[in-house]
Amino acid sequence: MSPSSNQDFIKIPVAEIESRLLQVLVTYGFSYAKAKTCAGVFVGNSLDGIYSHGVNRFVKFIELVKEGHVQPNHDAICKHSVGSIEQWDGQSGPGPINAITSTDRAMELASKNGIGCVTLANTNHWMRGGTYGWRAAKKGFVFLGWSNTIANMPAWGAVDSRLGNNPLVIAVPYQNEAIVLDMAMSQYSYGALEVAQLKNEKLSVPGGYDEKGELSYDPAAIKKSWRALPIGYWKGAGLSLLLDILATLLSGGLSVSQISKDNIESKLSQVFIAIDIIKLGNFKTIASAIDQIIEDYKQSVPEKEGKSIRYPGENILKSRAENMKNGIPVWRATWNDIQMM
Amino acid sequence: MSPSSNQDFIKIPVAEIESRLLQVLVTYGFSYAKAKTCAGVFVGNSLDGIYSHGVNRFVKFIELVKEGHVQPNHDAICKHSVGSIEQWDGQSGPGPINAITSTDRAMELASKNGIGCVTLANTNHWMRGGTYGWRAAKKGFVFLGWSNTIANMPAWGAVDSRLGNNPLVIAVPYQNEAIVLDMAMSQYSYGALEVAQLKNEKLSVPGGYDEKGELSYDPAAIKKSWRALPIGYWKGAGLSLLLDILATLLSGGLSVSQISKDNIESKLSQVFIAIDIIKLGNFKTIASAIDQIIEDYKQSVPEKEGKSIRYPGENILKSRAENMKNGIPVWRATWNDIQMM
Repeated sequence: MSPSSNQDFIKIPVAEIESRLLQVLVTYGFSYAKAKTCAGVFVGNSLDGIYSHGVNRFVKFIELVKEGHVQPNHDAICKHSVGSIEQWDGQSGPGPINAITSTDRAMELASKNGIGCVTLANTNHWMRGGTYGWRAAKKGFVFLGWSNTIANMPAWGAVDSRLGNNPLVIAVPYQNEAIVLDMAMSQYSYGALEVAQLKNEKLSVPGGYDEKGELSYDPAAIKKSWRALPIGYWKGAGLSLLLDILATLLSGGLSVSQISKDNIESKLSQVFIAIDIIKLGNFKTIASAIDQIIEDYKQSVPEKEGKSIRYPGENILKSRAENMKNGIPVWRATWNDIQMM
Repeated sequence: MSPSSNQDFIKIPVAEIESRLLQVLVTYGFSYAKAKTCAGVFVGNSLDGIYSHGVNRFVKFIELVKEGHVQPNHDAICKHSVGSIEQWDGQSGPGPINAITSTDRAMELASKNGIGCVTLANTNHWMRGGTYGWRAAKKGFVFLGWSNTIANMPAWGAVDSRLGNNPLVIAVPYQNEAIVLDMAMSQYSYGALEVAQLKNEKLSVPGGYDEKGELSYDPAAIKKSWRALPIGYWKGAGLSLLLDILATLLSGGLSVSQISKDNIESKLSQVFIAIDIIKLGNFKTIASAIDQIIEDYKQSVPEKEGKSIRYPGENILKSRAENMKNGIPVWRATWNDIQMM
């Protein structure tokens, strides 16, 4: 769903956005280095076409800074180390910076021991989990990571939301780029439901339940019931629960239920696992193993003639090239807000 | 779906089944020790109520032994070791034995380094992945593991099957027992579709596409199109692809596409990750963190009054107690076959 077709969007050159975000972040107390990293993540996410977790989310991020939930210059610190696994405390620092620190440290541990795991308590929203998958995979690592969230999805058979949609990221290097799966445990985010409703569109697959408890393609009906559908019904609900238990347990941080008490999405728990695949064998052999899988996958017979079968993250390269050339689409209202900050 | 209500099932005492399977395995060349382990896994799975991957699958397992795909006494060997990660070759040995070896070795590595990962190439079907999750969690470890399979599910937007349903297992210790998620990437297995069709029942949620390309609750229609539904549509298809890439890459073994060439499900690739949670902090604190999450989860408001909200694996304790007392339900025809082996 490219927002560029929508009149409410304008396209801004990458350098212009990045420099504006950097200025704003410095104004709100970020050190220059931290502002640069943070601005880079927001712009990178929009550049990659993940508009919901890029520049369009910046205003909300600054709100959390103003309210003290995000502490601009707090650094994550290592609380406890056991060989290949380390427990870090994010100290309420900016989510993207804490996540980069943790990803890089997981890679360091993996470089020594083949596999490395960093768990992170008391952090903030990492924006787009795929950012860290891309980061690790581009450096030759396999990446597995996930975050818990505020409660936004019911358990299977329940009507009230006690599960998070806890995004899971898995990434591998592929032909100088990467294959990156970045998926929340709900079929659609509430943001996606809102966009569909605004456009007066039905969902392409059932996205939740209506107030009668029937599966529904109608975004408005689902927003009324607040019963978003977990991927695979009982399966995604179960996976969400386990990802929360693991993030909480391994980091010693807060669970979805504890996070949700304050009704503000902060003090999240996350897990970052990196595996150094170069250590596992000849790089050429490894690369050709992935090539072979993708070649076979691409030979799939499409349901609709002429459609190509995409792997997770494939569209991103196209968005990146296009947005780099033509500018990043940003909601006009958001850009106005950012200009006035 | 307990088969005990079905006339075609008979209940056999645990000791009787176990001793019969052991005899058969020894007849087919298994050492006594290996036969005992293998029989224990088949019986344990049925005992836990996972009838599709227990005794009812034994005849098929013996077929694979007879055809030489499962080599009764081949041991998995370590090919390559890098600190906390090891690559093993299953040498076409029995899947359950190779999986136990790998799980135990991952726990050993985790005991030393906090986290341990064993990857396994050239193994056979592990039967029920949950077996290894329970095994690790009962010993105080967090467990994450997955297997690839023969191709049995289309990519998103495709009509031919090039993805496996690659089961994923996540387990954590919980109150002297465990919480164990064991889920394939398809919404329903073909076995489950068959059972629903035999009973002339519709599925409770869409399970695939009919031949017109419409989502369907009709098991017969889905079996006609061979288009089983991935959990969460594009999401489960993406997760399946990534789990296959990781299993293949990390183990140096065969991918779903390579396995599928011979049309026989053997030479699978698997991943076993264990984390020693005792190393991460006070056991009481960890235990109470899980208790707190499950307590909150259990307070969910059920859609249907009086229904309780279950966590993954919760039903197993009940099945185990019931089957231990009353005997394990086995298809009558299967039991006859096993008697005559």
